[in-house]
Formats: sequence, structure tokens, C-alpha cells
Amino acid sequence: MVKSWANLGVDLHVEPTGTGVRRGLTDALRDAVRTGRLAPGTRLPSSRTLAADLGIARNTVADAYADLVAEGWLTARQGSGTRVAERAVVPPADTTPPRRLHGRPTYDLVPGTPDLAAFPRTEWLKAARRAFTAAPYQALGYGDPRGRVELRTALAAYLSRVRGVRADPEHILISAGISSGLRLIGAVLRARGAQDIAVESYGLTAHWQILDEAGLRTRPLPFDELGTEPGRLTDESAVLLTPAHQFPMGLPLRHERRAAVVDWARRTGGLVLEDDYDGEFRYDRQPIGALQGLDPDQVVYLGTASKSLAPGLRLAWMVLPPSLVEEVAKAKGGIDTCGVLDQLTLAEFITSGAYDRHVRSARLRYRRRRDTLVDALAQHAPDVHVTGIAAGFHAVLSLPPGTEHSVVQAAAWQGLALHTLSFYRHEHALADPLDALVVGYGTPPDHAWTGAVEALCRVLP
Amino acid sequence: MVKSWANLGVDLHVEPTGTGVRRGLTDALRDAVRTGRLAPGTRLPSSRTLAADLGIARNTVADAYADLVAEGWLTARQGSGTRVAERAVVPPADTTPPRRLHGRPTYDLVPGTPDLAAFPRTEWLKAARRAFTAAPYQALGYGDPRGRVELRTALAAYLSRVRGVRADPEHILISAGISSGLRLIGAVLRARGAQDIAVESYGLTAHWQILDEAGLRTRPLPFDELGTEPGRLTDESAVLLTPAHQFPMGLPLRHERRAAVVDWARRTGGLVLEDDYDGEFRYDRQPIGALQGLDPDQVVYLGTASKSLAPGLRLAWMVLPPSLVEEVAKAKGGIDTCGVLDQLTLAEFITSGAYDRHVRSARLRYRRRRDTLVDALAQHAPDVHVTGIAAGFHAVLSLPPGTEHSVVQAAAWQGLALHTLSFYRHEHALADPLDALVVGYGTPPDHAWTGAVEALCRVLP
Repeated sequence: MVKSWANLGVDLHVEPTGTGVRRGLTDALRDAVRTGRLAPGTRLPSSRTLAADLGIARNTVADAYADLVAEGWLTARQGSGTRVAERAVVPPADTTPPRRLHGRPTYDLVPGTPDLAAFPRTEWLKAARRAFTAAPYQALGYGDPRGRVELRTALAAYLSRVRGVRADPEHILISAGISSGLRLIGAVLRARGAQDIAVESYGLTAHWQILDEAGLRTRPLPFDELGTEPGRLTDESAVLLTPAHQFPMGLPLRHERRAAVVDWARRTGGLVLEDDYDGEFRYDRQPIGALQGLDPDQVVYLGTASKSLAPGLRLAWMVLPPSLVEEVAKAKGGIDTCGVLDQLTLAEFITSGAYDRHVRSARLRYRRRRDTLVDALAQHAPDVHVTGIAAGFHAVLSLPPGTEHSVVQAAAWQGLALHTLSFYRHEHALADPLDALVVGYGTPPDHAWTGAVEALCRVLP
Repeated sequence: MVKSWANLGVDLHVEPTGTGVRRGLTDALRDAVRTGRLAPGTRLPSSRTLAADLGIARNTVADAYADLVAEGWLTARQGSGTRVAERAVVPPADTTPPRRLHGRPTYDLVPGTPDLAAFPRTEWLKAARRAFTAAPYQALGYGDPRGRVELRTALAAYLSRVRGVRADPEHILISAGISSGLRLIGAVLRARGAQDIAVESYGLTAHWQILDEAGLRTRPLPFDELGTEPGRLTDESAVLLTPAHQFPMGLPLRHERRAAVVDWARRTGGLVLEDDYDGEFRYDRQPIGALQGLDPDQVVYLGTASKSLAPGLRLAWMVLPPSLVEEVAKAKGGIDTCGVLDQLTLAEFITSGAYDRHVRSARLRYRRRRDTLVDALAQHAPDVHVTGIAAGFHAVLSLPPGTEHSVVQAAAWQGLALHTLSFYRHEHALADPLDALVVGYGTPPDHAWTGAVEALCRVLP
């Protein structure tokens, strides 16, 4: 029983639909009954037990139960406790699977998405008009698997200037997001006979899963107080890293460790996959150049418009070692799979300088948000330690040991969506576990930012 | 030696860069030397032999050789014939692989691409502005793996009205082209344990290859004078068909054979993959409705904007049996991989009626082209039999037996790019081989159409 309630808790965390605790719990329980996750006749835990498990007041649970009994979803009888009603509402008779509910939290602090409300729509449409008017009609046909040459050319110049990447348009390949790029690289590595790939102890589960589906076993590197420790790299085919800004811990890869990674790659022929997801956003010092500049023959540089502009564009890029280009293009199916119009528009957006202007303005906005966040935490949550704030648009909030679970539950009741650090921890991580939150400060639109910070401070110990 | 010249011939066929025969041959030979396909010192065949092999005048070959000797690419000495010069130009010393040459033929009659010069740019940009202005900012985030709901809703209504598809937006999934969709279905079938898939004896090699890469063996169905014969379907997991307009033969699947396919699917639980690539373009009678309408639980309907608008949009759609939706969405990686802006724009383009207007105008244009082509062939090439002209924008030209090779070579020298029927024939096809061309009449822009038809008539027997 405890396990099923923990699961329910996770569902609530992901999809809270109300703002108050009572309302949130009532909605979540109703939803669980309606969709059949709680079967008719199931006995619910006592209000005391559930309240303790969720870290909320017993009266709140009792009130939520009473609401649902009144609505007919639950039944309450002396001696048999509270149960899911037997005449549970039948799902519609058609074959439509139950629609996934996309209830939005009041404040979304899950990291990974930039401020979409600030997407430069007018500038983008202007660039689209210019690009589309200038393009030859042949551009609308089936294209080069590497993507449009206009975009590859614009990116080569931009990445060289801003990130120190040594890029030739011939070796750039456009993909629908970094994850699509990783899928291609994974397929190529596997086809070459690779079996293992080193990853960081903290990172994106989705990326590890893509590599896993490609048939590669992910082996985490140790993570210490200085960040990822590449010293144990041996016979892996490749290593996936976030050198400029470890995700989600926020540290850059230290100078001597950068060198060690490149040395390993040269010595063994291994490939370095450099995920430079938010390299443009750095606040307190000079940007850290791309590792790729150290050895373009051993490093695949992966960048994306998902953080600098919007994930919905589905545009990312890889700068490949020359020897990999053909294989990756072949893995892509030999044709371009990204829309030409957005590629032409992004090329125009970059070469016209609009991209630089947008990045500068976004950098200022995120920096202001970060400063508000750090100040508010210092004032209202002195026991919370903030790290990883020199770059990007997320921070790691270390919590007093043992408080993580209750903070997450309280956040759910407050309508705050956020992730714990454990969400980003590899199952075989070589790192001491840590009670912590990963708080993204990109997503809330400007008008909601103050409210989001206040709500966050309310749930912290 | 003969083999290497045949290969060279194929290269010329694909990438002729000049208009005249002599120019075309000269360019092709120069290119072969420059890129190293013809190594230094290689002895070339005599002008008489090459002329006979290519079906052109001996003087033309002699002139081309003389040009290249003058340019220093070849050497000619009494007694040792014509050879590739020893001091062959060294490729640049950097690691850049030789750039693929994309020389364009004068007239492109390869089927599969619509008239890109007629893409409705102004209307599209207007729709983009309207759609983009109306979209909530959240639309720019990571999206539903099925694609934007606005587009799925617009497509459900459109496909139901125009193609008789029974579609619910919940069961539609957007993909980057029909080939991307097939890749997903192939992965799902394989994961379910499927090993074989039936295909037509004629079709797209690229599609068979995708299924093959997914781990499915393609088994062709017999093809007779009435078209594809599905009577031999047995225990295959699925069958891939082009029921409305067999590609490239141009016949519709006959009524009783449509019924037989659906009966087979119901009896065995097999899946029908209905590739409806150009269902909108039908000239001489009522459009043939989609097979999917007969049984939405057994048929995957695949449609695309690649023929009706432009391949560069990289937008296609699948209407899936409800039971397949989750698996296919998962195979897509759980996130949307197509750009949101184009999806929103296409939705607006469809609902505003601009799509209907564009299709009507394109249909008229292709019909006029088809009529010109048929008239010209009747007049100038009476031995050529034209079929498959009731729909789409390609035709099959049956040639007198034994003439196919020389026609293709003559076409290459004329700067005409076209494909033979054998290019679309499955290696295990159950059909009598046929000397024929598949001529696409979508690609040339309007101003070039007359010239293209004249050039075609010149190379036909």
C-alpha cells in the first residue's frame, strides 16, 4: 500500500491541477479513481496515515476524503474505512485511450526550458520573410542530410566566434534536437562495434536512455567536489560530457580534466561527445570555450536552439570529426529531416545579428532572475545552499539531509513543479547522494517570477 | 573495364552538368579525374569503343578527349592511347572529404518532387504570421510526440472530407516525411516480433531499405496487368501498399483487391500501411477514397505535404489504429521532433482554405502538363505507350524492348534526368520485366516545361 501511495505522490507532483493543498489532493485522488489507477473497492489509507506519509495536516486529508465522498467517488462506512466507490464512473465506450491530462502547475520550475514568452516573434517572422524571399525554389526540395548549407555556414561562423569551435560547414549536421543527434551518434558507434559509453554521474535520463536504446551500456564517471572526474576512462568507445556547464550540477569541467579527456581520446581513439546545451549563458566570468577547439578530430560538438530560442524549433547542430560525417548522414537516412523554412530563418536570424541581440537580452533577464533567487533564498531559507549559478538558467539547492521528500510534496501542494537532484542521478552514479532540488528559472514568464520565488521560499525548510 | 565505364555512365546520368553531349561528357570525365574515380595513368577506352558503349557519335568522344588533353587532364600518345595524366591535380591537403557535386541537369524529370517554383510563398508567410501570433507561448516548448494538436485537428477534418479517412486527432501522429513514419512503424513491428512485411513489386527502394534496416524482410506481392495482387498474403506482419495510385505504375488497387487486403488484415491481425502520397491529384474521375476508411483498426494511413506543397517542409502524418498510438509515440522518443512553427502554419493554411486553393491550382497545372506530354508523345514517339496518367504527376512510358539503356544514355547527354522503371523494381519482384521510363512532370518550373517535353521526345525511339 505504501508503494502505491508513493506512486500517487509522484503523479501529483508531476500534474498538480490546483493551488491549495486540499484542492490538489482532491483533484489528484479524483483523477486516480476516474482513470482507474485506483480500482473500485480499493481501501484507502486512514487520513492519519496518508497525512503522515505526505507530510500534510490530517484535517486536510479528511476534508479531501469528505469532498470525494460527497461527489460519489469514494464511500465511507464505519468499520470498513474509506474505499473507492463500486459504481466507479465507466470510461467512455469508444476505443479512445484515456487522454493524458496536461494540468499545468501554477509555477513551473522544472529546468530545461527557456522563457518562451520572451521568444522574439516579431524578429523571427521578419527573418522568415527575408530568408524565404531570398531562397531559390530548389531549397524546398529533398535536401542534403546535413541540413541547409545557409544554416551550416552561419553556424560555423557563429560557433567559431562565440564558442571557439573549429567548424567547417561541411562537417556540421543539423538535427531535431540534441537528443536526435545523440541517437544518430549512438547508432554509428554501435554499428562500429562499440558496447560501452562513459557518461557523467549526473545528467539527463533521456540521453542515457537514447544511448541504451542504441545498444550502448552507459558507465558513469566519478563525480567529486570538483565535478566529473575523467581519470578512470579506459576502453569506452566514447564519453558524453557537459564540459562548459555540468548538467545539472553547474560546475565547468576543470582545466586539467579537460586536458585529460582529450588525452584519453587521442590515446585510445575514443570519441568525446560535448553537450554544450547552454554555452551562451554565462554570468560571472568569461565564457568557457568549447572543448572541441582542443581536438576537432576527436570531439563531437553538440549545440541547440532549444535553450537559446525555443525547443519547439527542433533545431540543433553537431560539429563532427570529418571522418564521421558520412556515417552520421547515412544514419539520418540520407535525407534532411528538419524543416527547410526554419533552417533558412535561423540562418538569417544569426547572420543578421538578431540572434546575438536575443542572447544578450535573455542573458540579462536570466541573470536578474538568478540574483532575485539567490537574494530571496539568503533571506528566507538560510539553511539552503545554492550552487551552480555562474551560468545557464537553473540552480542546485542543497537541502538539510532528510528534508527532500517533504519539500517536494509541499511544492506539489503549492502548485510548484520542480525536480529533485535524484531525478538526474545515474542509477550507477559514483557520487555521494545529496538532498537537493534542481530549480530552473527560465520557464516562468517575467510577470510570474516573483510569485514563483515566493512560493519556492514557502516550501523550503 | 566495361564495368567501370558503366559506372561512369551512371554517374553521368545522375549528375550531368552541361547541356550538349560533348560538354556533358567532357565535364563528367574531368570530374572523374579530379575526384580520383579515374586514377592517374588509367588507360581510357578508344573513342570508338566508348562511343559505341554510350550510343553517341565517335567524333563527340574524340572531341571531348581532345578538350581534356588540352586542359592537361588527359595525355594522348601514339601507341599508348589516351590516359589520365600522371600529374593529376592533387586534392587540397586538408581533411575535407571531396565535396559532392550537385550539378543540376537542364531538365529534371525524376518523379517525386512537385513544382517547387509554384510553392505559395506569400500565402504561406501570411498563414505563418497569423498562426504564430495566435499561438500561446507554451506551444514553443517541448511538445506532444504526436505533434501539435492544432495540426492534428485540422488534418482530421481535412482527411475525412477529402480522402474519406476516419480520423480522430488523438490518433494522428506527425512525422518528418512518410519515410520517418515508416521508420517508426518498422521499429514498432519489429519490437512486436515481426519478421516479414509484404510490399509491392514496384515501389520506392528507400522505403524497402527503411523496413530492412528496422529488421523486417520485404516480400513482394505479384503484380499483373490489373496491378498488385494481394491474394498471396499469408502470415506477414503487415503490407505496404499505394492503393489510390500505385507508385510508380499508376494504377489504383481494384475494388475486390482492396476488400481482399482488408479481409486478410482482419483475419490475421496484420497491419495495412497505406501510402497515400499524392491522393489529392486525380484527373479523370472521382478521387479514390482511402482504404483506411474500410477499417481504421487495421490500417495505418500515411499522407504527406511533400507532394501537395514541398518536401522541404518535412511534414507528413499517420492516422494510426488506436492500439498503436502509444507505441509509435514511444518509438519517436516521447517528444515531438518536427518544428512547431511549420506545424502551426500548416494547420492555419488548411483551416483557412489556402491548402484547398493551392491543391486545386496545382491539380490544374499538372493536368495541363500531362495533356501536353501525352499529345507530344502521340505525335513524336508513337512507339511509346503511356500509362498511369489518371492521377499524380508522373507517367510510365513503355519503350520498345531493348531500347531502355540507349534512351537513358541519350537522355543524360541531353541534360535530361530521368529514371527507368527498373529503378523502382524490387529485387525479388513478381512481375515481368518491362523496358520503361518513369517520367515525373512536377519538377520543371512552368517556363521550362515545353523545353523538357521537346528534349524528352528527342531521346525517345
